[in-house]
Parts: sequence; structure tokens; C-alpha cells
Amino acid sequence: MINIVILGSGNVATLLGTSLSKAGYNNIIQVWSRKLEHAKALANLLHTQFTDDIDQVVDSADLYILSISDDAIPFVVSKMKPVSGIIAHTSGSTSIDVFHNKFSNYGVFYPFQTFSIGKEIDFKNVPILLEGSDSNSLSVLESVALSISDKVQECNSDQRKVLHIAAVFASNFTNHLYTISQKLLEDNGLDFDLIRPLILETALKVQEIMPAEAQTGPAARNDLSIINSHLKQLESEPELSAIYRLLSNQITTFTDKNRS
Amino acid sequence: MINIVILGSGNVATLLGTSLSKAGYNNIIQVWSRKLEHAKALANLLHTQFTDDIDQVVDSADLYILSISDDAIPFVVSKMKPVSGIIAHTSGSTSIDVFHNKFSNYGVFYPFQTFSIGKEIDFKNVPILLEGSDSNSLSVLESVALSISDKVQECNSDQRKVLHIAAVFASNFTNHLYTISQKLLEDNGLDFDLIRPLILETALKVQEIMPAEAQTGPAARNDLSIINSHLKQLESEPELSAIYRLLSNQITTFTDKNRS
Repeated sequence: MINIVILGSGNVATLLGTSLSKAGYNNIIQVWSRKLEHAKALANLLHTQFTDDIDQVVDSADLYILSISDDAIPFVVSKMKPVSGIIAHTSGSTSIDVFHNKFSNYGVFYPFQTFSIGKEIDFKNVPILLEGSDSNSLSVLESVALSISDKVQECNSDQRKVLHIAAVFASNFTNHLYTISQKLLEDNGLDFDLIRPLILETALKVQEIMPAEAQTGPAARNDLSIINSHLKQLESEPELSAIYRLLSNQITTFTDKNRS
Repeated sequence: MINIVILGSGNVATLLGTSLSKAGYNNIIQVWSRKLEHAKALANLLHTQFTDDIDQVVDSADLYILSISDDAIPFVVSKMKPVSGIIAHTSGSTSIDVFHNKFSNYGVFYPFQTFSIGKEIDFKNVPILLEGSDSNSLSVLESVALSISDKVQECNSDQRKVLHIAAVFASNFTNHLYTISQKLLEDNGLDFDLIRPLILETALKVQEIMPAEAQTGPAARNDLSIINSHLKQLESEPELSAIYRLLSNQITTFTDKNRS
């Protein structure tokens, strides 16, 4: 049983805190958040203590999970008192070195998933990527991660950065393409509901096969008559045309390469 | 009970044929395909007759479902003998007018989903979009569609074209973004399996909320320090940089607009 302090109260802090709490053999002894009411809300969920004063963070915990926005990490790290326990952030984009010179035992505990407030998530399937300043820190982080997820692996800061970029393409940009389709449908009196099954099936397909094999559509077939008719239809939307052109060209080139 | 001929033997023809056959109260009396072995394979699945000779297509059916590639539709239509039954194609991109001057009763029967050979699909959740040359043709198409899907609605050729463009963005382009993430991961010794849960969750989110509300990530936060660090990392990949820049700019503009 190790004692944990959670610093932060957002989506990740909340889902991580509740999952660790359910996992049972971890003991969350305190929640800190910049806003007292946020700290209190999460602490109540976890039946534990809370504070909004960084100086009041207990110094006796085994593990400090720092789950706050990327740009706030260096500031909070600079304000914290040094602790002998392990401190780990949950960020995809912040190097492990942010803890260097201030703490002795530290690491990264990065759950690789998109989280929304109010949406339950089964952590079992969420990859947790770990990095540690030393083998003991890594091993403590590993045992905590394994208590909630089946997919735990080591990953250095360079790889984590690539993972984050890949996530921007596969999740943030993908969601923007959904938004574009929503706009196209609504502008033409059609309901977004019509396209929801297609969106889901597209994501389900690549759970089994690789996306390069799953590619279909006019660009993969290099069907210029359809591509040009779509571009004509999008004439009044220069930004959509630009995206259509760029992605279609790349799909065609890529499919040619794969097939030759 | 209506008699149906299926023309075509690809993914859509096969999934449609087997679903109609399971639905029970439709009678598939013949399969035609350009290749005899393909016609035979699907006919065997459906326990029915087959031919590869367009002149041998029976002229007594109530409904002819033409499910072949877009560019082959005009040619097959020109070769067919006129029939008194209803003929409908299953294409997103071909106008209903392709049947004009040749047939009297015709329409479109467009299942709006992505299909792969060997992957079972529950047609109940697949929207089927219908268009008819006249109210009787439309009503026959509707009763057939309702036998396999809960999501049947009318949709004219202009709307269907927009739907197809929306599908290119939400499915074909999305899949290409998955491919990019696969390449980024593999180039850095990481397994595509790591990102599969994120891809699925991104699609699941918009089953409940609208994608514009679900948008997260550096571009939605206008987090220039992360965006620039990602662009620096992608420097050696001009095409990926171009996509990253274009989509990020559009997400930032769009999020600003939505929030102001």
C-alpha cells in the first residue's frame, strides 16, 4: 500500500484518482488544486483531504501525481517543497527533465487516451506510458500503473513526444474532419446522425487491420472524375478544398507506393 | 414478397444480398456479375441462379439492384435490356438520371457505410438513403430498405453527393490520418496498437456529442509552444508539416469563432 497525493483536479486527475481509488490497494491521502472548490470536489469523490495551498501539500507521501496543464507544470514544480517521495507528471508533451535539480526521484505516468469530464472510461484498455529517473521510481510507477491498466510500458521522452504528435493526427485532426462533415451535412439540411455509424465503423476497422490496408475512397482508387466533381462542389470553400486536395494527393501517392 | 435480381458481386452487393436474404421476405432470383465465378460465389451464398451474360438477366423481376463500381454503371445500364421492374443503383456519386430514357421505374438505394469483404456488418444501424423516379418506385424501395435497416430516409441526388463528400472527410481522410499516425509510431519503434484505444474513443465520443464540442488538443487551446515544437519535429516531413499546419490553423480559427 503506497500513499499518493494528487496535484490537479481536471479530467485526467479525476479519472486517474477514481480509478486508483477503485483499484483499492493505493491510498490517496490528499488532493491539491489551485482552486479550493475543485480540490474539494475531487477529494470528496475520493474520501480524502484537500488543500489549495502548495505549502500545505504533505511531504510524507510515496508518490505525487502531478496532473495539470502543460504550461502550469514548471511553475508548480518551482513552488513545491522538495519531497523524498516520487513525483510524476501525466503529460504527453513535457520532458521528464522538468523535475531535474529539484527532486531526486521522479518520472512520467502518461495515460494515452482522450478524456472528457462525465464520460466513464475503462482504464484497463488505456495504455500507460512510464519513464523514471531511476529503476526504483520506475518500478513503483509500474506497480501503480498495473493496478489500473493492462497496457503498461516504458517510453522515453522522445518517443512520448512522437506519440503526442501521432495523437494529434489520429484524434484531434480526425475530430476536426468529423466537424467538417458535420458542417457539410448541416449546410445541406442533413443530420449529423446519418454519418455517426460510418465514423464508428471506420475506427472499428483499424482495431483489427492496419489503416494502410483499410484505405478506400476516390483518392485510393485515383478516381479523378469523382475527385474533380467533389472539388468543384467545394469551390466556394477554399479551406475545405485545400484540405481535400492535400489529403487526396497524399492518399493517392501513398497507395501507389504501397501497391508498387 | 418481391423478386429481386442483384447485379454485381462486390462488398456492397454481397452484404446487401445476404442481409436481404436473411430478412426473409424478399426473394433473390438471380445474380449477375461480369465474372462468372464471382456471380456463382454470391449466388451460392444466396441459393439462387447466376449468369455473366447481361442478355440473360431475367426480365420478370420486381427489383434490380445494381451494385457495381461507379464508372461501370453507365456502361451496364446501356447494355441492359429494358425491364418493367424497378432498377436502383447503390452509389453515392451517381445521379438517379443515369437511368433516364432507358427505364421507366428507377431509383437509388444507397447504404451509407464503409464495407469490407469478410467483415460482418449489422445493417440495422446502416442508414439507407433512397430516391425514386416516382412514388411507387420509392415506396417499393422503402419497404425493401426497412426490411434490413432501422434508418431509412429519402435523399435527393444533390444531398447524396454532399453526403459522399462528407464521408470522404469523415472516413477516407480520417483513415489516412490513422495511417500517418501508424507511420510516425513505426518510424520511432512504437506499436500502432498503442494508439488503437485513442482512435476508438475519439469515434465513440461523437456518437453522443457533436464533434465541434469534442475538439481538444494544442490547436483548440491555441497552444503555440506545443504546435511549434511539433512542427519542428516534423521538419523533415514537408507533407506532414503541411497537413499539421493547415488543420491546426483551421481548428484554431474554428474554435475561436465558436467561442466568441
